[in-house]
Amino acid sequence: MTIDIPSVLDGNRLALSRVLSQIENDTPAGQQALAELFTHTGNAHLIGVTGAPGTGKSSLVNQIAAHYRHSPEDGSPKKVAIVAVDPSSPFSGGAVLGDRIRMKDLTGDPGVFIRSMASRGSLGGLAKTTAGLVQAFDAAGFEIILIETVGAGQAEVEIARLAHTTLVIEAPGLGDDIQAIKAGILEIADILVVNKADRPGIDQTERALKNMLQLAHPGRRVFQHYGKPIKQNNYEDEPVWLPPIQRTIATEGKGVPELIGLIANHKAHLTNTGDLARRERARLTAELDLRIEEALVARWQDSLSDGKYSQILAQVIAREISPQQAVQKLLGLEEE
Amino acid sequence: MTIDIPSVLDGNRLALSRVLSQIENDTPAGQQALAELFTHTGNAHLIGVTGAPGTGKSSLVNQIAAHYRHSPEDGSPKKVAIVAVDPSSPFSGGAVLGDRIRMKDLTGDPGVFIRSMASRGSLGGLAKTTAGLVQAFDAAGFEIILIETVGAGQAEVEIARLAHTTLVIEAPGLGDDIQAIKAGILEIADILVVNKADRPGIDQTERALKNMLQLAHPGRRVFQHYGKPIKQNNYEDEPVWLPPIQRTIATEGKGVPELIGLIANHKAHLTNTGDLARRERARLTAELDLRIEEALVARWQDSLSDGKYSQILAQVIAREISPQQAVQKLLGLEEE
Repeated sequence: MTIDIPSVLDGNRLALSRVLSQIENDTPAGQQALAELFTHTGNAHLIGVTGAPGTGKSSLVNQIAAHYRHSPEDGSPKKVAIVAVDPSSPFSGGAVLGDRIRMKDLTGDPGVFIRSMASRGSLGGLAKTTAGLVQAFDAAGFEIILIETVGAGQAEVEIARLAHTTLVIEAPGLGDDIQAIKAGILEIADILVVNKADRPGIDQTERALKNMLQLAHPGRRVFQHYGKPIKQNNYEDEPVWLPPIQRTIATEGKGVPELIGLIANHKAHLTNTGDLARRERARLTAELDLRIEEALVARWQDSLSDGKYSQILAQVIAREISPQQAVQKLLGLEEE
Repeated sequence: MTIDIPSVLDGNRLALSRVLSQIENDTPAGQQALAELFTHTGNAHLIGVTGAPGTGKSSLVNQIAAHYRHSPEDGSPKKVAIVAVDPSSPFSGGAVLGDRIRMKDLTGDPGVFIRSMASRGSLGGLAKTTAGLVQAFDAAGFEIILIETVGAGQAEVEIARLAHTTLVIEAPGLGDDIQAIKAGILEIADILVVNKADRPGIDQTERALKNMLQLAHPGRRVFQHYGKPIKQNNYEDEPVWLPPIQRTIATEGKGVPELIGLIANHKAHLTNTGDLARRERARLTAELDLRIEEALVARWQDSLSDGKYSQILAQVIAREISPQQAVQKLLGLEEE
């Protein structure tokens, strides 16, 4: 199967759809397409959205998308892609994301493209596939790419690394505010959203989040600087971003314009401080290094005579030689 | 610094202490020692013990150690090593493990060796260092090695992979039973311990754990088979191990003999089914593959001309070439 790259770059939905499937299935055609699309990427703003089930995360994602379509700040509607990923627990049975009935507002709009991805393979594989899909959307001219993930586990943290701006969604009455934060979620949040703000317990949830934020940023007056970069003191050269907390009621669209404003502030912060360029550099370096490693291992495996690896591994398992000696033998650095 | 390997193998405490420090600091002498000690390993039973702060985990570890010293099943006291690891959160300020005052019962006993390790470096680094310490204890003739970690994060899961038998400790009234399990702890538990069994809420905690276990093993009658391998049905060749729940009161030693019995059952299960050999094989294969990868990358880096990597990385960042093309250039597979 060959992929029509010019049509993908033109934003043709059918061609895009095909290339997304090839990437998701990690076919040779998909890999080839990614290589060709790469030089056309780097223009989209990647927004990660993560939160436990029940926080109303998907409704919020829809509202954010609708806002960029119908009420953009600069008056010019943005093309929006949504990648919904469910790295569900191995024993949960895999609740499938993408109950896209609720997406009525968005369907039929040619400026919106939604792609759901069920959990498959390893964590690393999932993060890699997500990165591939995002790259294709970026090359196809989508200016806003929303990456929606469930929960607050290691998978979400991995996927969040890809995003420029990460929203963490909480809601009152789930009883796990503190726990979610324990799991390392504060480290990835650029903006905290308390959705379902009309529910009882909202003050309590927000207070718990504030306390945790305060612990994470000791000595900093976090709440006086809602989502505006501040100079913390005279010793720091760069303004510091402290995660603001935004209340929303996604079902009514309340708080969404304010949230969009915070996202814009965060993007400006990333650009002005050079953080965007630094993150981009770090991400591409990591990708390049991983590919080099894979290529080196593949080349070495090709050069290995049949059965040599198993034979030497057996010696290690029998404790006849150490792993260190095994490496010497397998790389041909030592006579056997 | 040279290390006196024969003295380490003889169980000399001073020599052992020195080699542990070299391994912890990842010095060339430490690496050399690990290579030499390797062929003397494979005899210890590695027991992982993990649980949130406040579960009384350390007291329980002490009681387990004391039991193997003073009341072993076969009448012959075992040499016991304790490796206490605290992979504390990057922003918690790093509570230091090893409040070893409570270890009065054990100090002065030449058959016990305790080593605390504070968090340092990356997660992978921590798991690797722990594996190194365990290897040294194993070679030095310690028959029981207890690996104690705090909490239920990714770090604990990584470290638990090293253990043959993993105990997960809970306690009533911490309010996070369900959450801890959410974080993937059930996947690593071979035995669940509810400590502080004299506290209010014990029934509730145990019920929550049972429910989660039932979800994790659908259709299996988990609780009829406390810690004894069962044949689940006629389609399975091997007996299945379902994690039992054991109540303990560590401060009084209650439930500890029963817990030791369950650990022995689990070890017998691992041996009889061949699981022990399979795990060992998988672990050594992973270690060998990682070392080969590192060696291949190091060799490639040595062969690279100065500045070539940065120059090609810059082209990727500028989106002039794709990462795929960069690999071709960096591995010399394509003319520039």
